[in-house]
Amino acid sequence: MPGSRPFVSLATDFGAAYTSICAGVVYTIAPAANVLVLSDEITPFGVREGAMLLRQALPYLPPGVHTGIVDPGVGTPRRPVAIETGRGDVLVGPDNGLLLPAAERLGGVVRAHALENPAYRLPEVSASFHGRDVFSPAAAHIATGVDVADLGARVDPLPLDLPPPAIADGELTAPVLYTDRFGSLILGAEPSDLAAAFGDLPPGTPLRVSWETGTARLTFEETFGSVAPGEPLMWTDSSGWLGLAVNQGSAAGALGLGGAEAVTVRLAH
Amino acid sequence: MPGSRPFVSLATDFGAAYTSICAGVVYTIAPAANVLVLSDEITPFGVREGAMLLRQALPYLPPGVHTGIVDPGVGTPRRPVAIETGRGDVLVGPDNGLLLPAAERLGGVVRAHALENPAYRLPEVSASFHGRDVFSPAAAHIATGVDVADLGARVDPLPLDLPPPAIADGELTAPVLYTDRFGSLILGAEPSDLAAAFGDLPPGTPLRVSWETGTARLTFEETFGSVAPGEPLMWTDSSGWLGLAVNQGSAAGALGLGGAEAVTVRLAH
Amino acid sequence: MPGSRPFVSLATDFGAAYTSICAGVVYTIAPAANVLVLSDEITPFGVREGAMLLRQALPYLPPGVHTGIVDPGVGTPRRPVAIETGRGDVLVGPDNGLLLPAAERLGGVVRAHALENPAYRLPEVSASFHGRDVFSPAAAHIATGVDVADLGARVDPLPLDLPPPAIADGELTAPVLYTDRFGSLILGAEPSDLAAAFGDLPPGTPLRVSWETGTARLTFEETFGSVAPGEPLMWTDSSGWLGLAVNQGSAAGALGLGGAEAVTVRLAH
Repeated sequence: MPGSRPFVSLATDFGAAYTSICAGVVYTIAPAANVLVLSDEITPFGVREGAMLLRQALPYLPPGVHTGIVDPGVGTPRRPVAIETGRGDVLVGPDNGLLLPAAERLGGVVRAHALENPAYRLPEVSASFHGRDVFSPAAAHIATGVDVADLGARVDPLPLDLPPPAIADGELTAPVLYTDRFGSLILGAEPSDLAAAFGDLPPGTPLRVSWETGTARLTFEETFGSVAPGEPLMWTDSSGWLGLAVNQGSAAGALGLGGAEAVTVRLAH
Repeated sequence: MPGSRPFVSLATDFGAAYTSICAGVVYTIAPAANVLVLSDEITPFGVREGAMLLRQALPYLPPGVHTGIVDPGVGTPRRPVAIETGRGDVLVGPDNGLLLPAAERLGGVVRAHALENPAYRLPEVSASFHGRDVFSPAAAHIATGVDVADLGARVDPLPLDLPPPAIADGELTAPVLYTDRFGSLILGAEPSDLAAAFGDLPPGTPLRVSWETGTARLTFEETFGSVAPGEPLMWTDSSGWLGLAVNQGSAAGALGLGGAEAVTVRLAH
Repeated sequence: MPGSRPFVSLATDFGAAYTSICAGVVYTIAPAANVLVLSDEITPFGVREGAMLLRQALPYLPPGVHTGIVDPGVGTPRRPVAIETGRGDVLVGPDNGLLLPAAERLGGVVRAHALENPAYRLPEVSASFHGRDVFSPAAAHIATGVDVADLGARVDPLPLDLPPPAIADGELTAPVLYTDRFGSLILGAEPSDLAAAFGDLPPGTPLRVSWETGTARLTFEETFGSVAPGEPLMWTDSSGWLGLAVNQGSAAGALGLGGAEAVTVRLAH
């Protein structure tokens, strides 16, 4: 029945064409697969952004084979891996931390294997397009029923390099994870971190946010619609991260936050 | 048989990743569905642009469940709706006029119901991502056979806010609906409006177009190829709207029409 | 079985929405088809870029009906065609050379027919959107089993206009085919051309590259990872073309190569 078609997703920083070539490789090896391009527009080399996307998105996709490729190390000896999760997914991609936050959300790492077996690669492996030649064939073969243990040696996947938020008395400093396409900044801190720094914050609480090159006053809100168009706010985004936004506008542009790498939040008086 | 898979389309201003999360929700609830992302690149908050896209595109898609999400009011009490059309489609999205022009093209509104029943939402509904938590689950459940009347109370959907063209003797003023990716401006007026203002216009007729900050001389043509590369023209776009373009170029850029909200057309002498 | 669904791909310069309208036309006529958007973001009017994309991508897609639409001549009498290849694909698009390099990669042109039969077009054909009205219906009908000979008269498809590389003693001049989304320039020359000009070049060989408005020194490398981040290189891209890149950066931006139409390569001393 159609519902039993194996599910394969692809998330890359390749753009449409190269990502579709990967989809074509999957369809060639696993013609019955249902292939979804989760994203082809991750910021090039944005491992942290890609990791956060996979962590946010995969719980909403059907269990299946999920391929994530943001791979600044292609052409170096970095390891390609397949990670089986507690939910029953297999995550395929470079072993650079990209896949780990998603794996933790999907029931944790059950086992991980390196992609070494040439039977599950394309016959010729290029130096620069492992998405096509290594990751997509592995994903497609797993979707047709190949066991991850047949791909290569068992390995311990590497964690993502991500600094934790710093909580001091009356002050929260958090890394900027990425800027979304609306110009909102997503921070590496959660509402519980805000509560640890300031206690319970009712909607409308005024805050002062400062970063390397500027500062802004805004309010903590439950929804964008709670402030007028053009007004800034801090809110909790749909994946559970704190974020800085401008209602119907761009925080990166309007507040000058575009290049910020970390922000410090204090109560405003 | 594969041809009987229910058809679900998605059109959003979310970008690739968030739109694919919506597709993932549909595939999880309705694994047999055929899901097409109609667009994930509507200009953010461009309700009018989204409405025109749906009106233009849906007649060319198979009857099915068509989800349109351009939703500046998310987080406010604006109503989510499902609209059944005369052709047998169900249109799902915010009740802000986005869906109405398409519904009129598809045989008119047969009935509309609010999306209220928690059985057809995700278990947790976030404040800012109703595409994932409200609209996509509703669309998927409808695709699996749920009747729109089971979603919530019957409602009268709101119309789209769109000024009509103004026709005076020898003068046509039309709102700019949106700028397409080639930099062509699509106007809220049709060839019949042009005829009402000027009578029958043969191809090659010279026109003067003026807007808030500029003016340009161009000709009315049947096809781009009727003028040299780099030359401007007014033509009828494939959805039946009048438009301003530059052959193999950008009208928004080359003519300085980028920010125009309305244009006035007169015969040139 | 699902694996026997006919495969249809689409590659256009239309953007997401208009390309998805084409996909909707295919799904309407051929509901069992598996439709893959190979790209909707070819540079507008970039026939050469589109031709190189199809040539690179199609060997990795399943045999099927592959539609390529980059069509500056829409609205002029340029001919629409369907080309059957030695591998068993049918390529559909404008007869402007776009499809020929791919056809050559897929076993060569077996036969080509013009798209003339109104039975395999939409009932109304617009002046500017042949992707929707002519190419997609033809592709869908072929996917359902229509023979290409039923589409129209047999024709000889036109070749792509592409200057060959010029090899002189100690000097290789190559056209720029296109700039990819990472800002790397892809050249119309292959490693064999480099060997013809300079003999065998070991990795790390220093080269001097010059173009209309500038010059740069870089090294010939097997992989991006062989140079430090920010450093330029010449390498062989995954489709077999020579290219100019900056590791984790943009050659178009960092080297000022953005507008170059041709480059000349010499050994550096």
